[in-house]
Amino acid sequence: MTEIGYLGPKGTFTKLAVDTAFGDEKKQSFQTIAECIDAVDNGTIDIGVVPLENAIEGTVQITVDYLIHQVRLPVVSEIVVPIQQHLLVRKDFDGKLSDIQEVHSHSHAIAQCHQFLHQNLSHAGTVFSTSTGRAAEIVSERNEPIAAIGNKLAASEYGLQIYKANIHDYPNNHTRFLVLTKNRDLVQIKHEAHLERTTLLIGLPSDKPGALHQILSAFSWRKMNLSKIESRPTKTGLGNYFFIIDVDQPYDNVLFPGVKAELEALGCEVTILGTYPVYHMNI
Amino acid sequence: MTEIGYLGPKGTFTKLAVDTAFGDEKKQSFQTIAECIDAVDNGTIDIGVVPLENAIEGTVQITVDYLIHQVRLPVVSEIVVPIQQHLLVRKDFDGKLSDIQEVHSHSHAIAQCHQFLHQNLSHAGTVFSTSTGRAAEIVSERNEPIAAIGNKLAASEYGLQIYKANIHDYPNNHTRFLVLTKNRDLVQIKHEAHLERTTLLIGLPSDKPGALHQILSAFSWRKMNLSKIESRPTKTGLGNYFFIIDVDQPYDNVLFPGVKAELEALGCEVTILGTYPVYHMNI
Repeated sequence: MTEIGYLGPKGTFTKLAVDTAFGDEKKQSFQTIAECIDAVDNGTIDIGVVPLENAIEGTVQITVDYLIHQVRLPVVSEIVVPIQQHLLVRKDFDGKLSDIQEVHSHSHAIAQCHQFLHQNLSHAGTVFSTSTGRAAEIVSERNEPIAAIGNKLAASEYGLQIYKANIHDYPNNHTRFLVLTKNRDLVQIKHEAHLERTTLLIGLPSDKPGALHQILSAFSWRKMNLSKIESRPTKTGLGNYFFIIDVDQPYDNVLFPGVKAELEALGCEVTILGTYPVYHMNI
Repeated sequence: MTEIGYLGPKGTFTKLAVDTAFGDEKKQSFQTIAECIDAVDNGTIDIGVVPLENAIEGTVQITVDYLIHQVRLPVVSEIVVPIQQHLLVRKDFDGKLSDIQEVHSHSHAIAQCHQFLHQNLSHAGTVFSTSTGRAAEIVSERNEPIAAIGNKLAASEYGLQIYKANIHDYPNNHTRFLVLTKNRDLVQIKHEAHLERTTLLIGLPSDKPGALHQILSAFSWRKMNLSKIESRPTKTGLGNYFFIIDVDQPYDNVLFPGVKAELEALGCEVTILGTYPVYHMNI
């Protein structure tokens, strides 16, 4: 049976992404992104799902850095889920907002609900937890008028009720997750893909004005649409950096090899990190 | 007396940056980045210091999003500190690495020391805390053979000893912090600035191929060197995004107004987030 690893604990947004995208495969929780990626690399699990962008419990930098510097695994899919934060309380809580004494959650989730907390729960203390899932667990264990901020999966995993839904400040927040595996055939996501994407890493030989402009010319004159570009320092020293570029089209045998050849002629190092379908999930 | 707010608790990398850059001003810790920025905005404190990039206890997204969407405060300085992670134990611990049963830290710090932990402390459990400072506090309170990962400030704040220094996987990791204030004259950093930087936000009218290439042309033909570029989704919907661009030169009355006028003619929205000195700290 296919085994899927994810950044845990249960009740986090990564678990929500895994449950939404996959079926009844065996699922295993990992404490860190690095452990999850290592487990795919050494064959302990078949598929790893890790946060890439706008994550609550994870961070972009660690995922990308680890994939670039430590373990080069193919990206075979991307899963996008909306961030919907709810105020969760125990099922036996029948008080008002003003009765809530503490709000527990991961600091990033608390930050995402800053306006709501400021307007409605400024009397309550905020207590940071290591994840939104852990916050829900704490609330489930304590017989006190406290609340957690987390998603609906955290509510169901820990038997909590949603006291107030969608308390996040911005409606259009999303988290992107990468699906990593050495065996692409194992990944069967029963949804329709939103689009096809190709991610490239482009290393610059040196830090010179206009280099990025030259790089983008190679994409621009081919009318290839970049949906993301990010410069990142390399780990070898200040001043050197590389770019992560998302192109919203699948890898092909004409345009991408052409771009790669042109950039290599400029002295760049070009790596295709993956070409994969992107799934937008409704949760 | 000038009051400086920072993302706490004590013993974190933000506090280390504040202590290194400033003198004996009054310092106040905040639980979240949003609270710290709000306090500068409403005048409770004079200066706020928040992490911008590669942070351990914070995240880039929250700082940038909050500055763009909620509170527009001038960036007046940037402080760069190297990330140096140490293995911290109580002063009365005289055992070996193999005696250590648990390692406490923020999940990002644990991820940054992944190789060291894997090679030397694979027998020990890892326990996540809400910050590296909090991890040091936990170790200081418990009479058990456990360790924390944190910086040298965490060691001194909580009376711990550095059992093994510099256990982070990459030597060239840095964290960038922004100094925010409405009164630039209050910020007196007694170090020599490494360079001058100007940060721009550039909003695109629509998502079309080649738009970024056009934007960069305006900088490129003026030989203005971009040290960072990052595309970010706006909060108003999928498909719309803007760019954050760092130019490593101070704002002037010829080049920057020229760029701004050209980009506005293309339909872009251009905002100067700040023009400020960058200080590289040796800690």
